[in-house]
Amino acid sequence: MIGLSSYAGVMESLINSAEEQQPSSPLDKSWSNKQESSKNQKPGVGGFVLVHAGAGYHSESKAKEYKHVCKRACQRAVDRLKAGALAVEAVAAALVELEDSPFTNAGMGSNLNLSGQIECDASIMDGKSLHYGAVGAISGIKNPVLVANRLLNEAQKGKLSAGRIPPCFLVGRGAHDWAVSHGIPPCPSEKMATKFSLSAYKRNKRKMELAEKMDTGHNQTKKRRQSSENENGSGCLDTVGAVVVDLEGNVAAAVSSGGLAMKHPGRVGQAAHYGCGCWAENACNMNPYSTAVSTSVEFLWSHTTESMCVGYMSAQDSKAKTHISRLPPGTVPGQSLAIEGGVCRLMSVAE
Amino acid sequence: MIGLSSYAGVMESLINSAEEQQPSSPLDKSWSNKQESSKNQKPGVGGFVLVHAGAGYHSESKAKEYKHVCKRACQRAVDRLKAGALAVEAVAAALVELEDSPFTNAGMGSNLNLSGQIECDASIMDGKSLHYGAVGAISGIKNPVLVANRLLNEAQKGKLSAGRIPPCFLVGRGAHDWAVSHGIPPCPSEKMATKFSLSAYKRNKRKMELAEKMDTGHNQTKKRRQSSENENGSGCLDTVGAVVVDLEGNVAAAVSSGGLAMKHPGRVGQAAHYGCGCWAENACNMNPYSTAVSTSVEFLWSHTTESMCVGYMSAQDSKAKTHISRLPPGTVPGQSLAIEGGVCRLMSVAE
Repeated sequence: MIGLSSYAGVMESLINSAEEQQPSSPLDKSWSNKQESSKNQKPGVGGFVLVHAGAGYHSESKAKEYKHVCKRACQRAVDRLKAGALAVEAVAAALVELEDSPFTNAGMGSNLNLSGQIECDASIMDGKSLHYGAVGAISGIKNPVLVANRLLNEAQKGKLSAGRIPPCFLVGRGAHDWAVSHGIPPCPSEKMATKFSLSAYKRNKRKMELAEKMDTGHNQTKKRRQSSENENGSGCLDTVGAVVVDLEGNVAAAVSSGGLAMKHPGRVGQAAHYGCGCWAENACNMNPYSTAVSTSVEFLWSHTTESMCVGYMSAQDSKAKTHISRLPPGTVPGQSLAIEGGVCRLMSVAE
Repeated sequence: MIGLSSYAGVMESLINSAEEQQPSSPLDKSWSNKQESSKNQKPGVGGFVLVHAGAGYHSESKAKEYKHVCKRACQRAVDRLKAGALAVEAVAAALVELEDSPFTNAGMGSNLNLSGQIECDASIMDGKSLHYGAVGAISGIKNPVLVANRLLNEAQKGKLSAGRIPPCFLVGRGAHDWAVSHGIPPCPSEKMATKFSLSAYKRNKRKMELAEKMDTGHNQTKKRRQSSENENGSGCLDTVGAVVVDLEGNVAAAVSSGGLAMKHPGRVGQAAHYGCGCWAENACNMNPYSTAVSTSVEFLWSHTTESMCVGYMSAQDSKAKTHISRLPPGTVPGQSLAIEGGVCRLMSVAE
């Protein structure tokens, strides 16, 4: 989970030297205290992005890769913001970069399902209009987030011919066909699998067959329920996601996932669920905060898994900061929660 | 929408003569006041069901049919309760009856989508375990609620082989195949369409073609957005649903829908969404009410559409009561809200 809360009207600029720091305790005060306000900011250079490459288990050996993809995703979003894009467009751009990485469980290199196929979930929300777009169990599309984004854009245009309500959540074959008919090119499924995802599939398949073989002759139902918790979980990451504030102060959020390894075909996970995958809500008269996050810092991330890789960057930064957050030594994944965050002061839109 | 709130510990028996009454104002007090407590109840005959056959527009000519199906659905659930079934099993039984009616937009006789196919959404929730099962855009299954119920049941058994998490929400082809592999027989799609749904499809198709023809030569995007609000909405019903309290005081809720007429294939509607289609939550230490409904009556229904057909029955009743609720004359569907309810005093479980 990542989130941010931007107070409309007091967005100042950022200087942040958190790179490579790994706070040993959640909500490390010393780290937050290192943030200082910049003196010489130009107006109109606000905007901020925070991305994550998935919570789960990040091996030390691949840490560099995860940080790189987070940096590229941040850069992509900030480039769009500087070119005048709104938050929702910038957040989609960040997600495309995260999906294109073969190391994340989203888009290219997603987990394979029980049938050896890739089926993806993704959703996006625009904090300005509160419009939402999502796809579930979609196959043969390289960037599921672009379909979710297109659904959101089409819905914002209003009703279809003969008064029909445009869809905001499409699944399976129907989602694929809608995407293609709206100009998003199909991608052969075999091109989306990677060496890593294929070998993980084979390993999981063997494990499953072994577990089921061991059950034969016993009370199968009872046996299957005793299997260990994380047998196919370790080494797998869940989702990727991003939150963005644009130069006008609008917020947007998006999330994308290949879902659980060895899931049943047709399974739709949280990434596609309204109110579960992502949420974005601009500040309004009733609420001066763009998204309500119950913390004292301006943005935060949290995870119950062993580790999580995040990156963030404001439009004033020359490059993104990245960080792999890990549970403290001796804690149990699933039973402990790490919450970390930072402060980002953007230029006031009014300045 | 229908809902009920049962106060654990003060469930008494019911005498209710609301049949055929149509309260002219929402939350008609005189109607609620007509409920009286019964004197000679045997212990162990508690249990209650409330069903609805869809909000939308109920023609006067078919009112009898809608009331009949509501009565049959109530009877089916109460029969199960009397045989000792838990709430979740009884609510599924009520839904099967509602889905099997060719007059409701669920299961048999569902709205056809843009391709002339039936794709259904359904979900069910058990207030005791808080488990949830749902299917979206499923084709070729006569009773989608039975697939949702089976998903819920399977999830309650715990993990699958090799530690895999069982699915709770399946869509499209994957949902169909899972159902069949779990013993739920497939049903040819053409058997699920009715004369009425096919002629409505042809009528809608002509309307759409006409609307799109009129757009040719004009600014098509602009034009299509100006189409009237309810062109394909009138005469269509949305979902069917039920809420049940069993003899132990457990609650359950379920909902099923064929979705919008002429929807895009793969579109998933509210009926399949977690937290949108239905909700059930048993009383617990923190909350003595089984489901929190913000009203002074023990169960209620509400709609913004022109009309809604409901039925309800307790295990002590010999037959179900039904009621078609209508917006007051002169009000505008979509802009006005009708809320009605009643009182049902069940036997205390402890008695």
